[in-house]
Amino acid sequence: MRKLSGENRIIQLLRDRYAVKNSLIKKGIGDDAAVICPAHSDEFLLITTDMLLEGVDFHREWTTPRRLGCKSIAVNLSDLAAMGARPQFFTVSLAVPTGTSERWVLDFYDGMTKPGSSNGAQLIGGDLSHTDNGIMISITALGESLNRKVLYRSGGRAGDLLYVTGLLGRSAAGLRLLEDGCTQSLSHAQKEALRVHQMPMPRCEAGLWLAQCGLVHCMMDLSDGLSMDLPRMCAASGVGAEIRSSDLPVFPESRLWNCDPVELALHGGEDYELLFAVPDSKSCLLEKNYPSKFPKITKIGRLTREVGKVWIIEPTKNRRRLSEHGYDHFRRPEKKRKQNKIKS
Amino acid sequence: MRKLSGENRIIQLLRDRYAVKNSLIKKGIGDDAAVICPAHSDEFLLITTDMLLEGVDFHREWTTPRRLGCKSIAVNLSDLAAMGARPQFFTVSLAVPTGTSERWVLDFYDGMTKPGSSNGAQLIGGDLSHTDNGIMISITALGESLNRKVLYRSGGRAGDLLYVTGLLGRSAAGLRLLEDGCTQSLSHAQKEALRVHQMPMPRCEAGLWLAQCGLVHCMMDLSDGLSMDLPRMCAASGVGAEIRSSDLPVFPESRLWNCDPVELALHGGEDYELLFAVPDSKSCLLEKNYPSKFPKITKIGRLTREVGKVWIIEPTKNRRRLSEHGYDHFRRPEKKRKQNKIKS
Repeated sequence: MRKLSGENRIIQLLRDRYAVKNSLIKKGIGDDAAVICPAHSDEFLLITTDMLLEGVDFHREWTTPRRLGCKSIAVNLSDLAAMGARPQFFTVSLAVPTGTSERWVLDFYDGMTKPGSSNGAQLIGGDLSHTDNGIMISITALGESLNRKVLYRSGGRAGDLLYVTGLLGRSAAGLRLLEDGCTQSLSHAQKEALRVHQMPMPRCEAGLWLAQCGLVHCMMDLSDGLSMDLPRMCAASGVGAEIRSSDLPVFPESRLWNCDPVELALHGGEDYELLFAVPDSKSCLLEKNYPSKFPKITKIGRLTREVGKVWIIEPTKNRRRLSEHGYDHFRRPEKKRKQNKIKS
Repeated sequence: MRKLSGENRIIQLLRDRYAVKNSLIKKGIGDDAAVICPAHSDEFLLITTDMLLEGVDFHREWTTPRRLGCKSIAVNLSDLAAMGARPQFFTVSLAVPTGTSERWVLDFYDGMTKPGSSNGAQLIGGDLSHTDNGIMISITALGESLNRKVLYRSGGRAGDLLYVTGLLGRSAAGLRLLEDGCTQSLSHAQKEALRVHQMPMPRCEAGLWLAQCGLVHCMMDLSDGLSMDLPRMCAASGVGAEIRSSDLPVFPESRLWNCDPVELALHGGEDYELLFAVPDSKSCLLEKNYPSKFPKITKIGRLTREVGKVWIIEPTKNRRRLSEHGYDHFRRPEKKRKQNKIKS
């Protein structure tokens, strides 16, 4: 019997098998969130679901219930941000080991509801269970479009310039600290890396702006690492890409704890920044109008005609294929410390 | 530190803590599904989330991937049925042990999508992960109201007559067979019990009709057993109840494999039938108009003024308090073979 052999393959199988046959569904399996058009409604409704499993996506000893709650909702809101939707509601399935205290559960919920409501999302229900295994969290978040403007992964065209928000590799640098047991007497940069890893900030406002501005062709969030996620954008858009390693907005401080900032930026994952493509002719306008209060944006490369091929140009001008080292649950089960998202 | 001490208490804590502060939310935590009113929409959107965990809610050896998929979606659609909503969409979080075959995953999805789409619900996305522990399933189902007619648990009034759809105790009788290792050379009744346990039928059409007919005060589905669920309806409606054991639509054949049909009807759980209350003055009209193509309905008792008290009248005319023996994850963790739902 064939074993599960990679998320992309499974998603493709499911997508082929359960292709949308419903005029109310604008986008089903295969993007950051599903997009539906409820009858009698002027706006699209966007729905995303993400799971976090103890031992796979997090270690309980490496976080607190509040931070875990915060991260759990953040990774879901990031999927809505990735399509330019406004978060509105969320439900939570939570299974905790027998003997877990009420305090733990309430702290977890508090951790979720604060970033949830500051981004406009309200807890409306869920399910609660006990388990003899690790903590299991599954959140479904709902958001709405504004003026039906939604960005998909699939709108990119050859020649578009590629941008990302914020910095890449900070979360992975924070994870490295936890793996190395470094949690005391931290420097400012180490605290920042840890904060980003434990409590990532979904880019909801920036995502909404980018969808509304009318200058962006496609967008997604970076959850599994640029080397995993950019090929997904390319596949969805039917293009290739090339990026310049020297242009990546890395987190150079991570060198101080023996990380390679470029490697983390490419393969680290869990940054929950936005990756988007803008036609060359509109990039100046976008850069000029992009609000300074949002996380800065950085041009990292462009989409190309070489369908499915993703190249990285090194400072030496060498060009090499960008291999996928991000996190894939089914391809590399031995590497178990990172978040997986295979939306939607 | 106080330990988790019962679902009802936890739900109450969460409900108090995260009370709705949003005019778009008609019903948040505490009913079978949340009810929201999207901006610019004429209809309510209903959302429910349910989890199934291996070792807690099911045993892999006792079912097939198709049947597990079928049950997983059924328990969610039942929550929509309980409020009279039309199922529309669903998302699935699935975590499977490393080494699970593609065939297993696809069979599971096939098992879900068939009853899903026959009830009008389309798979639109989800999340997929591996785990070193048991299978974990969390589904979120969405449905819409028709003419904004939705039934809550809270609409019951003293004097209302209580009805249930279908038979009670069949699922628990099927579970008993599995627990006893009886899966070969089954009688017709045993096959029926097993089928209901493994592939319950959500009462979507009956639920929609009951919400539309305008004669029903309140409704919920029976997931944890009448003895757990009826007190929840009473608490939500601020009433008490009395039921007659001789009026319960039991599954008498289960006596043949040493079950007590009345005990299973009261405490068995997982029947996914509907429980609803109708004013005395309208019960004749309801019984007359209720379509014969739907599962039959049975009058089992009435709501009373004795707030929070639920009585059962025995054939001897003795009246005793109905004790809660249904399934509660946090109260009785040692009893681990039944489905828990604590919506929404």
